[in-house]
Order: sequence, then C-alpha cells, then structure tokens
Amino acid sequence: MDMTTTIEKPARTLPVQDARIYPRGGLDVLSRAEVARLRDASGGGMHELLRRCALAVLTSGSASDDPRAARDLYPDFDIQVAQQDRGVRIDLANAPAMAFVDGEIIRGVAELLFAVVRDLAYMAIEMGPAYAAELESSDGITNAVFGLLRNARILNPGDPNLVVCWGGHSIGRDEYLYTKQVGYELGLRGLDICTGCGPGAMKGPMKGATIAHAKQRKSVSRYIGLTEPGIIAAESPNPIVNHLVIMPDIEKRLEAFVRIGHGIIVFAGGVGTAEEILYLLGILLREENKDLPFPLILTGPTVAAPYFEQIDRFIRLTLGDAAAERYQIIIGDPSAVARKMTAGIKQVREHRLAQKDSFFFNWSIDIPWEYQQPFEPTHEAMAGLDLHHGRAPHALAADLRRAFSGIVAGNVKEDGMRRIEEFGPFQIHGDADMMQALDALLRAFVDQRRMKISGEYKPCYQVLA
Amino acid sequence: MDMTTTIEKPARTLPVQDARIYPRGGLDVLSRAEVARLRDASGGGMHELLRRCALAVLTSGSASDDPRAARDLYPDFDIQVAQQDRGVRIDLANAPAMAFVDGEIIRGVAELLFAVVRDLAYMAIEMGPAYAAELESSDGITNAVFGLLRNARILNPGDPNLVVCWGGHSIGRDEYLYTKQVGYELGLRGLDICTGCGPGAMKGPMKGATIAHAKQRKSVSRYIGLTEPGIIAAESPNPIVNHLVIMPDIEKRLEAFVRIGHGIIVFAGGVGTAEEILYLLGILLREENKDLPFPLILTGPTVAAPYFEQIDRFIRLTLGDAAAERYQIIIGDPSAVARKMTAGIKQVREHRLAQKDSFFFNWSIDIPWEYQQPFEPTHEAMAGLDLHHGRAPHALAADLRRAFSGIVAGNVKEDGMRRIEEFGPFQIHGDADMMQALDALLRAFVDQRRMKISGEYKPCYQVLA
Amino acid sequence: MDMTTTIEKPARTLPVQDARIYPRGGLDVLSRAEVARLRDASGGGMHELLRRCALAVLTSGSASDDPRAARDLYPDFDIQVAQQDRGVRIDLANAPAMAFVDGEIIRGVAELLFAVVRDLAYMAIEMGPAYAAELESSDGITNAVFGLLRNARILNPGDPNLVVCWGGHSIGRDEYLYTKQVGYELGLRGLDICTGCGPGAMKGPMKGATIAHAKQRKSVSRYIGLTEPGIIAAESPNPIVNHLVIMPDIEKRLEAFVRIGHGIIVFAGGVGTAEEILYLLGILLREENKDLPFPLILTGPTVAAPYFEQIDRFIRLTLGDAAAERYQIIIGDPSAVARKMTAGIKQVREHRLAQKDSFFFNWSIDIPWEYQQPFEPTHEAMAGLDLHHGRAPHALAADLRRAFSGIVAGNVKEDGMRRIEEFGPFQIHGDADMMQALDALLRAFVDQRRMKISGEYKPCYQVLA
Amino acid sequence: MDMTTTIEKPARTLPVQDARIYPRGGLDVLSRAEVARLRDASGGGMHELLRRCALAVLTSGSASDDPRAARDLYPDFDIQVAQQDRGVRIDLANAPAMAFVDGEIIRGVAELLFAVVRDLAYMAIEMGPAYAAELESSDGITNAVFGLLRNARILNPGDPNLVVCWGGHSIGRDEYLYTKQVGYELGLRGLDICTGCGPGAMKGPMKGATIAHAKQRKSVSRYIGLTEPGIIAAESPNPIVNHLVIMPDIEKRLEAFVRIGHGIIVFAGGVGTAEEILYLLGILLREENKDLPFPLILTGPTVAAPYFEQIDRFIRLTLGDAAAERYQIIIGDPSAVARKMTAGIKQVREHRLAQKDSFFFNWSIDIPWEYQQPFEPTHEAMAGLDLHHGRAPHALAADLRRAFSGIVAGNVKEDGMRRIEEFGPFQIHGDADMMQALDALLRAFVDQRRMKISGEYKPCYQVLA
Repeated sequence: MDMTTTIEKPARTLPVQDARIYPRGGLDVLSRAEVARLRDASGGGMHELLRRCALAVLTSGSASDDPRAARDLYPDFDIQVAQQDRGVRIDLANAPAMAFVDGEIIRGVAELLFAVVRDLAYMAIEMGPAYAAELESSDGITNAVFGLLRNARILNPGDPNLVVCWGGHSIGRDEYLYTKQVGYELGLRGLDICTGCGPGAMKGPMKGATIAHAKQRKSVSRYIGLTEPGIIAAESPNPIVNHLVIMPDIEKRLEAFVRIGHGIIVFAGGVGTAEEILYLLGILLREENKDLPFPLILTGPTVAAPYFEQIDRFIRLTLGDAAAERYQIIIGDPSAVARKMTAGIKQVREHRLAQKDSFFFNWSIDIPWEYQQPFEPTHEAMAGLDLHHGRAPHALAADLRRAFSGIVAGNVKEDGMRRIEEFGPFQIHGDADMMQALDALLRAFVDQRRMKISGEYKPCYQVLA
Repeated sequence: MDMTTTIEKPARTLPVQDARIYPRGGLDVLSRAEVARLRDASGGGMHELLRRCALAVLTSGSASDDPRAARDLYPDFDIQVAQQDRGVRIDLANAPAMAFVDGEIIRGVAELLFAVVRDLAYMAIEMGPAYAAELESSDGITNAVFGLLRNARILNPGDPNLVVCWGGHSIGRDEYLYTKQVGYELGLRGLDICTGCGPGAMKGPMKGATIAHAKQRKSVSRYIGLTEPGIIAAESPNPIVNHLVIMPDIEKRLEAFVRIGHGIIVFAGGVGTAEEILYLLGILLREENKDLPFPLILTGPTVAAPYFEQIDRFIRLTLGDAAAERYQIIIGDPSAVARKMTAGIKQVREHRLAQKDSFFFNWSIDIPWEYQQPFEPTHEAMAGLDLHHGRAPHALAADLRRAFSGIVAGNVKEDGMRRIEEFGPFQIHGDADMMQALDALLRAFVDQRRMKISGEYKPCYQVLA
Repeated sequence: MDMTTTIEKPARTLPVQDARIYPRGGLDVLSRAEVARLRDASGGGMHELLRRCALAVLTSGSASDDPRAARDLYPDFDIQVAQQDRGVRIDLANAPAMAFVDGEIIRGVAELLFAVVRDLAYMAIEMGPAYAAELESSDGITNAVFGLLRNARILNPGDPNLVVCWGGHSIGRDEYLYTKQVGYELGLRGLDICTGCGPGAMKGPMKGATIAHAKQRKSVSRYIGLTEPGIIAAESPNPIVNHLVIMPDIEKRLEAFVRIGHGIIVFAGGVGTAEEILYLLGILLREENKDLPFPLILTGPTVAAPYFEQIDRFIRLTLGDAAAERYQIIIGDPSAVARKMTAGIKQVREHRLAQKDSFFFNWSIDIPWEYQQPFEPTHEAMAGLDLHHGRAPHALAADLRRAFSGIVAGNVKEDGMRRIEEFGPFQIHGDADMMQALDALLRAFVDQRRMKISGEYKPCYQVLA
Repeated sequence: MDMTTTIEKPARTLPVQDARIYPRGGLDVLSRAEVARLRDASGGGMHELLRRCALAVLTSGSASDDPRAARDLYPDFDIQVAQQDRGVRIDLANAPAMAFVDGEIIRGVAELLFAVVRDLAYMAIEMGPAYAAELESSDGITNAVFGLLRNARILNPGDPNLVVCWGGHSIGRDEYLYTKQVGYELGLRGLDICTGCGPGAMKGPMKGATIAHAKQRKSVSRYIGLTEPGIIAAESPNPIVNHLVIMPDIEKRLEAFVRIGHGIIVFAGGVGTAEEILYLLGILLREENKDLPFPLILTGPTVAAPYFEQIDRFIRLTLGDAAAERYQIIIGDPSAVARKMTAGIKQVREHRLAQKDSFFFNWSIDIPWEYQQPFEPTHEAMAGLDLHHGRAPHALAADLRRAFSGIVAGNVKEDGMRRIEEFGPFQIHGDADMMQALDALLRAFVDQRRMKISGEYKPCYQVLA
C-alpha cells in the first residue's frame, strides 16, 4: 500500500509582495558609520521587535486589530535594513500586499515604516548601554524623551495647538461618534491631534479633525500617534496618523504626552484611562506645578455620563474637592469642549511666553523620578502603598494609581492572577472608605463592560488599617 | 367667554447669524465697474437664485437633503453683494449658524459662497444679453463653457488626472460603500475626482479619494463639484468639494463634464444616469470622435450587476454590439476599475500630446449643436423621433435619449403627466422591438426601486411603425 | 572681360538661433478662438511692433542700448505666434544667441517674451476697434489701464510696498551709484521696485534692492518694468526686471505708474524727468486729490543738488510755495529717503483702509481727461497755452508741462525743429517772469549736459503778454 | 602749575547698537542641557574666538577687508549667548550699526551670526575633549567633517550641482570680472556655488551666479561659504553667502571642499591657490581614486594665461604628464568652462548612482591620514621631505606641497623667516631640476605680484642631492 504523509501547509490567505524602499527626509542624510550601526541594531536583538512593529504599520487600517492575526496571516514576513553608501534601504520580504498599489508602496505607509526604523534605532543606539548612566536621573530621562521626540521631528516651534486625546480603544458606537464630533470641533478651530495611535478614542478625534481641517483649508495638519513597542502590534496606527513615534516604554510615552500636549481631553475608556487620569492628577497636584495652566477636560456623550460621575466622585473622596478643580467635565457638548480647550491653550501660550518656556516642550512641568519608573505590582510593593487620608494629594494620587494598577493586574492579568493564587490577596494599608470607593469604581467598570473579567468581580486584596 | 386669537409664529428651530465676508483670491482684483455690475446683477433678477444657491452652500454637509427644508428653516435668510472700493463684500443676514465657528465663517464654506457669486455673476454678465449672439453657434456655446470654467479656475495645465464620476444621489448602502472604495483606489493612484456635487455616488468617490490622498501624502487635490442652479438646492455640495462650479443649465453642465474629464466612471443610478450614458454614447459614436480615446467604465458591486446587464442589453439591441465597445463593465472590483482608468488616462495623455490638444479641455471631441440644446418633450417633439433600426447609431442614441427623457416625464414629472392626461399618449415612430426593450428597461428600474412611480408602471405612449 | 558685381552682404557679427517656445502660466489657458485672434493680431499690423519689442527683450542686458544696433545686428530676426490646440507657441527665427544657454532659452527671457505677446495682444484685441467707444471717457481709459495691468498679473492684493522710481536713463556714475544705494535701502525695508525698465535710474534701484532682498531673505520680490512700444527698443528691459508690462502709450504708462505706485522717488534726469514731475504735480494739486497721501521724494547725491534746486525754484516761482509741499527734496542720504518712503507708505496704507480703497490700484486719485490725452505741440496748440500767474496751480502745471514739452520739441526733435523753421517761433501767451524761469531751467539742463542740443541754446518762442 | 594728563580716547568713528536676537530654524529646538552647554562653551575659552567671528559677520560686506580695522573700529563690541527656557538668545553689545535697519538686524546677517554660534558650539561640544579619541583615525576625522556639515544643514539629497571655486582673494580687475562671468555661466546652467567666503575669486562667482539664477528664475540657490576661525576675520563673508560654515582648521576645510563639491574650478591666485592644487592632485593621483570622476578646471582670462602655463609646466615636470590629465586649463572662455563642468558633474552623478554613493558627500574619495594633519615647516620636517623623481606621484605631490608651504613660510611668514635667520636655510633632499622648477614658479609669482615679499626673491633653502 502506498502511503504518503503530507504535512498540510496552511493556505496563505492573503497576498504578499517583496519590496525595496528608500527613505525620503530624516533618514536620508546619515554617515556610513551610522548606517552600519542602524543595520547592526536592526539585525541583532532588535530584529524581532522591528519585525513586529513593521508588520503593524504595514497592516495599518486593516479591519482586524488582533495582533496575532497579522502575524498568523503573514508568517513569512521579514524586514532587513540594508546599507549602501547612499544611505539606508529597507528590504521587505512577503509583506502584506495591502500596503502597496500596483507594486508601489503607499507613501504614507513608507513614512510610518521609516518612523519605526528611526525610533527603534534611536533607542538601540542613543538610549543604549553607552548612555545608561544618563538615564539614571529624572533630568536624564526627560532629556532622552526630548531627544527621541526631536529626532522624530515632532517638536516644532509654531504656536501651541496640540491637543492630546486619551480614551479607550474599544468603546461603544455612540462614544466613538462623539470622539469624532469633538475632533471635528477641535479641527474647525485649527487644533492638531495627538493620540495613542490605535482605534476607538484614538482614531475618532483624528477623523473628525481631518474633515474639519479640510473645510477650513488648513494645509499642514499633524495627526501624531505616540505608541510603544508592546502595544503597537495590538493597536496598529490608524490610517490618518501622519507622524508616528515609538517611545521605549509606557512611562516615557506618558511623559511625552504631557510634555508635548498643550491640553488633554479624556474620553471614556477602561481602567487604563482611569490610571492615566490618576497619573496626570498626581503630577498636576504637585506644589511645583500649582501655577501651571494645563487644560484638562473629561468628556463624553450622555451615555458616558455615569463613567465620569464615578471617576469624579472617587477623586473628590480620595484626593479632595481641590483636586477636582484641575479638570472639567463636559457631557454631550463637543463644541463647548473645543471652545474650552481653545481658551485653555490660549492661557498656556501666555504662560509660556511669560516664563520664556518653549512652545514645543513643556520643560516647566515637574515630573518626578518615581513617575518615570515602572511599577511592578508585587505583594511587597502593594504592601508598601500608603492609602490614608491626610497625605499630600499628589503622593496619594500616585499610590492610588499603583493600587489601581495592582488590583487590576490581580483580577485580569495573567501574572497578577498567578501571584494572588500563590501568595493570597494583597495586603494594603489604607483607610477603609478609600478602599471601598476604589472597589465601587472597579465594580462600576465591570458593570459598564469597560473591564473584562471572567465571572464576578471579587476583590483580590485585604485592607490593613 | 374668553376669546383670544393668537397667531402662532412658527418657532425658528435653528440658530442664525449675520456676517460680512471678504473674498480671498479670484474675486479680489475687480475694477470698480465690475463690482458695480456684480452688485447690480446680484440685486436684480438674479437675487432669488443667488439666495437659494447661497443657502445650499451654507447648509452644506447637513443631514437633510431636502431643499425646501433649508428654505423653511431659514425663512429670513438674505444675501447682498455690497460694493466698496477695495472690492466686493458679501453681507449675510440670518444665515445658518452651522456655517460658522465661534462667529467666524468656515473658510471652505466662504470659498464655496464666493464661487456661487462668481459663477452667477459670470452668467449674468458674460453670458448675458450682450453676448446672446455668440451663444448661437455650437462653437460659441463651447467657448462659453470654456470661459466659465476658466473663470472658475478649474482649468489647469497639469497632467491629465481628472475622473468624472456619475451615478445616483440616493443609492443603497452597498452601492454607496462601493463608490467609496472605487474613490479610494482612484485616490491611491493620484487621480482627482469630479462629480455632480451632491450625496450618494457624487460624494462616495470623493470621500474615498480623500483618505487615499492623505495616505499617499498628496498635498493638492481637486474635488470638483459641477452643478446647476436648478439642482444645487436639492443636492447641496458635500463638505469635501473644494471647487464648486455652477453651470447655467444641464446641457452645458454635461458638456463641461465631457470636456474636462479625462475619463468617466458610471455607478448605478436611476433614469437620470441612464440618460447620461445615452448622451455620452451619442457623442462617442459619432464618426468625428471615432479615434478619440475616452475611458468609460460602468461599475458597481454585485448587487448592482443586474442594473448594468440591463443597460448593456438595451444598448446592444438598439445601437448594436459595436456601441458596447465604447464602454467596459466591471462588477465588484474597485482596484480593477482604478487600474483600467489609469491605463485609459495614459492613452488620453498620449493622444492629446500627439494631437497637440490641451490637457485641461478636450477641444477635439465633437459635441454637435443639438446636444447643446434642451429637449422639451412635447407631443410634437416626441412624434418627431425616429427610432428605427438602421439609423446611424449616434443619431439613434440621441433620439433614444430623448424618448427616454419624454417617457420618464410622462410617467413621473408633473408637466409630462399633465400633457399625457390632456393629449393622450405620445405617438412614437419606431421599431416595436426597440420600444419593447425600452419598456423592459424602465420596468426593471421600477422593480429595482431606482425610479419612483405611484402605482404600477404603465407605458405612456403608442408605437407607430 | 568678365565682370561680376558682387553685392557685399555685411558679415553677421553675432550668432543666432531658431527656437520654439511654449508658455508657462498666463498664456497657457486660452481658448482656441483666443489663440486664433492672438495669432492673427501678431501676424497683421502688429507684427513689426512685436518683432521690435521681442528683439529688445531678447537682447536684454546687452551692453549697447542703441535700438538700431540690435536691429542691424539681427536683420533676419523674426517672430511668429503659432496656434496649436494646446495653446500658443512662439517661433523664433535667427534670434540672438545671447538669450539662450546651450540651446535652451533663458527662462526669465522667455517670460518677458510672453509678456510682450500678452500685452500687445491685449492692446490689439481688448483695446482694439471693438472697444473704441469705451475709451472715450476718462473712466473708460482708467478701466483699460486697470484691465491691462490685471491681465499682466501686476495687481495683487498684498500690503502696499511698491515704490516707483523715475529718473534719467543716461546719468553720471555718481548719480547711478546713488540710485543703487537708495534701492538697497528700500530693499532692506522690504519694498519692491517699479521703474521705466531701461538702464540708469531705471536699473540702479532694482540692482540695489536685489542685494538687499537677498540679505533680508525676501523670497518673492517684484521688479516691475513699465514701458511702451515706442521706447522699449531704446530702453530694453534690464536683466533684473521680472515683471514686464507694455502700456499702449506714454499717457497710459504715466497713469499706470501713478495708480500702482504707493510712492514715487524722482532721481535726477533730463527734461523728460522734469515733465514727469510737472505731470504728477498737476494731478496732486487738484482739489480732488488734496487729502490724498502720496509720498513724493526728489533725491540725488551731492552732485545732483543743483538740478533739484533749479526744479524747486522753478516750481515755487510758477506754482507757488504751496505746490512745493507736495514733495520733499533729500540730498545725499539714501537711508533717509527709504525711511521717509516707508513712513509715507504707512500713511497710504491707513488712508486706503479708511477709504476702503484697494491696495493694488489707486482708484481714488483723480486723473482728468486732458491728462490722459497726448499733447501735439503744434503752433496752434502752443498759442492756446495760458501761462499767467493767478491760474489754479493744477491747470497751470498742466500748461507748463505742455509748454515745456513743446519747447523741447522745438529745440531738439526733428518734427518740432522743422515746424519752427517753417512757421517761425511759437507764440506763447504768458507772464514774462514765468517764461524766463522756464528758459533758465532749460539753459541749466543744457549746462549740466542733461539736454543735448547742437550749438547754443536759443529760445524757439516769443512771449505775448 | 596746573597739570592734567588727558588720555585721548580715540573718537569712535562708527555708530553701534545693542540687540537681542532669537534664532529661527536650526538652533531653535534645543534641550535645556544643550542650551546650557552652548552658553558655557561660548562664555569660556571660546569667547574671544566667538567675538572675532561674530564681528566678521556683522561687518560683512563692508569695504575694508582688514580684520584689525573691524576690531579697532568696534573695540567695545561684545557677544553673549544667553539661556532661556525657550532656547538660546544672542545678546550683542556695541555691535556695528551697519548690520541693522531701523533697529532691526538684517535677517541674513542674523542667520550668519547663528551659523557662527552653531559651528563654534559644535566644535567645542561634539569635537571637544570627550570625543578626542574618535578624531584619532582617518575615518574619525571624516566623520567629524560630515557631522559638522550635516549639523550646518549643508548636506541635502538633491541632484549634484555644487561647484567649488578656489582662487585668490586679491586679484586684478580683469581676473575678478572673469570670475563673475564664469559664475554667471555656471548659474545659467543651474549650478550652485561654494567658495572660501571672502572677496575676490571667492565673491565673483557668487555674484555672477546670483544674476544668472534670477534670470533663470531659480528660486532656491546655495551660496556656501566654507571658512575657518583663523581666516574669517580677514575674509569676512561676502553679502551673497547664504550658508556659512566654520570648519575647525584648514585641513578639515579642504576635506569639506573636496567631499561636498561635485567639481572644482581654480581661478588664478597666489601661492595658497598653488598649494591647494597640489593638495587636490595629491589626492586624485592616489591609486584608490584613479577611477573616480572629478571635474577640475583651471581657468582665467587671457592675462592669467601665464600663471596657469607655469603651474602646468611645473606639474608636468615634477609629477609627469599623466598628472596633467586630471585637470583641464581653459583660458578666456567662461561658457566653455561651464559647459565642461556641467558635463563633468553629469559623469559624477552617474558614477555615484552606479556606486550607490551619496550625492551630498563624496564618501568614496580616499583622503589619507597625512592629508588630514597640519604640516609644521620646521627644519627637521623640511629635511624629511623626499623630492626625487621616481616616487609615486601622489606621494611626491604631498611632499611638494609641503616644500612649497615651507619655502613660502621661510620667505614671507614671520615664524618661518625667524627660523631661517636662526638656523640657516632649510636642507632639502631632492633632484636639482625639480627644485629649480619650484624656484622658477615662485619667482614668477613674485614677478606677477601674486606673492608679496620685501626686496628680491631669494631661495631660503639648499638642495642636498
């Protein structure tokens, strides 16, 4: 009997193509030595990272935002940075055909691709081992953030007009449409948009602004996407992003938002968004930043009102009513949001002029060392938190953010859940009412389906008074 | 008994505002005498027309496309063209607030507003009684079309890249999404779009192209809307249009499409679209235009396939298979449409170079006097048609278009229906099979809901062999 | 004996070449009919004029400014305007090779060449017999001047910054260097220059401004040359001119200067310059123009001081001290001239804003019919002058200008000298002191070699009290 | 007896003014730390250098080119680089008023001033002690040259069109006019100019090109001045220079010329120019550079013919006829020079494309370590030269250049003359005929007044066979 074993190679479902791409601007004037370093960096430990980020960019605008999908669909995709005397060249193998038109790569996609190479190379070289010492101070980290942003040509000396928009990447239809309307109203007033570069609240404001900029005949507009290597694959840049920056980690990404944005709008989101609010309040409530104007607006359509009410209630209870003066909640009024933001940015402009601070980078805002460090929610770290009334609000905000982050991890993240299983619930020192408020907030998120857990929400901690 | 008569003043539902607007570019270098003529023209017989067109532009992008709605919602709206030595000024009273941002008119809306004034003034002055004689020849009309388009700065000497898109303004969701996809594929290939400037198939291709142009970093794009006074109110310019031109009547508008477009794409539509196809074939089948390359693509998603099959069958039966060589039908393949159009326009470019014809205006195509004249479907005119096999296809196409137009009028237009009631059915001379084919086509339109009639479709004519 | 007569053809001393030139901008969007009219106009009566003007432009920047030289050196030069569907084409035969680089025409020269065709065509068509009636009123002539300038794209709506410079085309070295210095100081202050487009005082200010504009990194500068057919051949555009306009005659050229200039600087010159001063004063002294700001500066280096003193003395004696308030004399201080002009133009700007007059065309200034008409110095016309004290200064200024013009003609122009020989001296009605002053002025010009006569200056007129 | 000693303070003859200047572009996006380093560098050891260079720039275009004059005329001039959060600010005290217009600094002068600060800061920081190791290899020096030029934004990826012009700064009138004509012909062909940034042959080509670029309507032109701290004061940038770069020393400046120029034109000059020719030949004759196209043209008017004949004769005698194939001598034909250069640059372009070398920096040309080092003409160093026939031409060229340099120093430079007095004539090992040729060349320079000595020329060396 004739027996043949055939190993079924899964049918590649999507067309691919090879390509060689040459940069325009930015990466085009490099020395031979720089090109060599770039090639080496991209070929070494950084290669898998580069491959993943490049694939995210090449499938930008595709329907699915499941990162594994892209990797499964294009298993043979590869990218190499090649050297030639004239400069760098990017060689793509088995790249998604959707990034090409009649064999030519779409110009905007090529730009994002070079942005990926540029930023990963900057990390590997300028923030690499040779410069480790410089990253060991708060100023050093701020300088590194500045350096990476300048290298990405994000900093320009024009008038303040950059609005950062935060919010969830998977939000309801009404909430999404609302982010578009807010973007439209911002765009009508000549404001540019910076977001975290994925779908949902990261895309809506850019779409709205695009239409408005076209109607206002604004010829140069910036749609900045600030991302990080761990997240770009899951939140591939939406097709409107025309400036992409990859920051090395979440802390530097948050610092970048705060230093380049002239104001921040927070749309409804999940726990991540709540953490971002606590991060920002922790900074704004510092004595050093007391007199700094910083427009901060929390907004959503009527359906999102409960979300913001809970956040507001939680902040007032924990950080006090004074903390609530740092932000403004506007429900269901996109044009009021835009008017308020315009007025706030005008104040920022005047303050910068008076302080002789630059328009393009907020040097004056104080971001302390501990905000620039990652928080690892171990049992030890959680036990070290101090959640009592009477602490300085900014210090309390920082610890709340950490508690929040740890509890979320304990409930939904693999690592955190395993720790809880192994060592029992976190032991947190804090006032009972504060912990209850935190609980209530998390339960509400679960009820509003903004936080996905399996089964019912169950606190993963014990309060020690 | 207490009796009070209250005259209810209808609540004005939408906010309004007054404004004075000064032009940028185009209307800004006028002589005193020209400003005076402009003011007089806009104040005289043209005033109501100006008011209506201006209102359409000021409500551009609003949800409703019911023209009467706009007029009912802004009953006190008025517009005056004022003179001052520096040039013209437009004074608006009770104008829709939606056209303004914080008291400032949206720049793109202001541009469209000045386009309206510019074109109506051109009609009133340059095509007015003083020039009546010049409009009495075919060349004279073509020159007038050229003059108006040049005055509107539509003609520019760049490489051929203008695709005209025709199709219905109220089409199904699938068909609409398809027009966007085609626009996207055209835009990826650097092509600009010209349509009739309303919703549906007039808007989709522009929207798709906008995204594609952004992705290709195309910085200067033309989204030309060609309309006419009778229709602008009903089909107010979609917000993407950045060049608006108002042609005096439907015939000159059709001629403008044919002379400035480097290719035409026809999406599914109603009887109007079918008439446009017959108009174009009537021209292309002329001996004089035999060797002229002119890419013409009929396309739609799978659901629209029957529509194009019927059209195709009708054309082959009446005008012969040779006529069908002038167009190509592509179903459900937007990128194939764009590739085909790109290839076709390349041929147009080469032909123009070889013939030393201009890129911006197709002087070579022959459009005879009768195509430049309106057709009034009286019983006498209908009886004059000659719908027999054996006629020259271009002449037959012209008469078919007229028959078509008359029968539609007899079925759905107030004027036409009244005539039929009064004088009985039209008496048409023609071959029976041809008339049956026409009938079948109309019935299919009714079945596909592309033509709205009350009750069942009933032929309003009799055939005389 | 074999006898052959050989007619020696003079050796052509300078190389020539043939060329076909296609326009960029301006002449590139014409209708077929317009191209045909253009071709006809340039081929008909206008042809010799076109040939002469074209030759002047093609030899622009050559050392010699003797017009006959050019015609003698390029006897076989010819120019034809050819039609093709795409637009116009200029065919040159035996054209001066100096206008070409490696077979390609210098781009700036091509632009000037198309300016010549454009303006001559405008005269032939838009100011031709069909429009004769419109030129029979003062307003009609002003409109024609406006139309020609707009067609030449000279009028643009930017801020007022155009300084007209008048003065002689053959002036001393010191005087020439001084015009460069004044131009340099004007240029440093962002001002553009308009002159009569030849050498000497017409070229110096442009050269100086070019250097200053470069130092100030001013990227768009206008060096406008306003000329007329009778003079372009003798005063071929200097190489810096980047906008050339040919006005139909001296009167329309003077009106153009006055209406587009935001201020006028007069350098030393000959009798022509003196006539221009009288023309301008005649206008500025009109009651209608009393309140109109119009910066007018007479200036030169120390060596030119006597020239301006004589002019000043003559004006005060004849028109009164009040007339002298309309201008300012500055000797040897280029930077003071520029500061004064800048301040004056600021006033002009404010006045235009207040009056809502345009920046690009001085509609408000009153230029009466008689200033728009040529003056033919016949014995009859000269006898009609009225040069008595007590007349309105503006009327007297006008007659003085005419007397001036006639006496110069009687002394140096062929026509005028013949008339004097034939009919005896002009009989002029006027006050003796005024005539003596005029005499003194002319004698001074002769002494300063600003007016060339053969032999000694001898009055060609008699005064009748 | 009343005795007062008055120390006469010399009357300051020229007006001065104070100013604060803010940068545009380039220096405007700096981090706080960078601004601080910049301020420190400019305040420390670099301060006197900065002061001298700044004064040279502020008196750019003044008549005198005596560096001491400027310093004597503006003894109280000072410059400080100040820090403020927004970036840097330059504070000027008692600065030459000629750099200002109505109190505002001339924009081009401000640009040059910031170029001075930029380049001196780059030297102090990026080429300072921290990077000393990197400058200890040939590649390291080339990278430093590249870094400084890129930082100065001189490198741009456009098509090759940069012509380097060398030649004397004090040349005869005929020779100067000739350099203008060559510049004009280069400019007509779209070529940009790079020179050493002073008067004479460094200014003429730029002036000529400016006129030509204007006539060709070339909107972006580069007039690059490459200088060094030791020479900028003596050869202050002419007013046309719009890109100024200060290289740290003569060797890096020469390398910069060779690596950014796409071709070199050498006008007549003095001994410096002859040395430059030998430098360039020494490089071009290397085996490594054998196949590299490098257009090199020696040119001048008829009066300069003897100069080039002597150079040519000397080269052929010492380096052989093959060496003479690397250059071409053209006398009295500016347009031939430009045509030849255009053709040569076309070859360079093709070669770079083929080799995938960059257009903006000639990485491929081999410049060895010893060419990058200064030569100190001590008796020991001179005795180490080896001037015998039979050596590799490139090695011989290098030693000839050194001999040349030493002998010139021994004759005219203070240091050199003192050494000769102290230690007697240099002892040079070489073939007699070669030394005689060298002698003849120097004598000719003296005769042509291209080299200034007191008394008669007398060899300051002895030949040892």
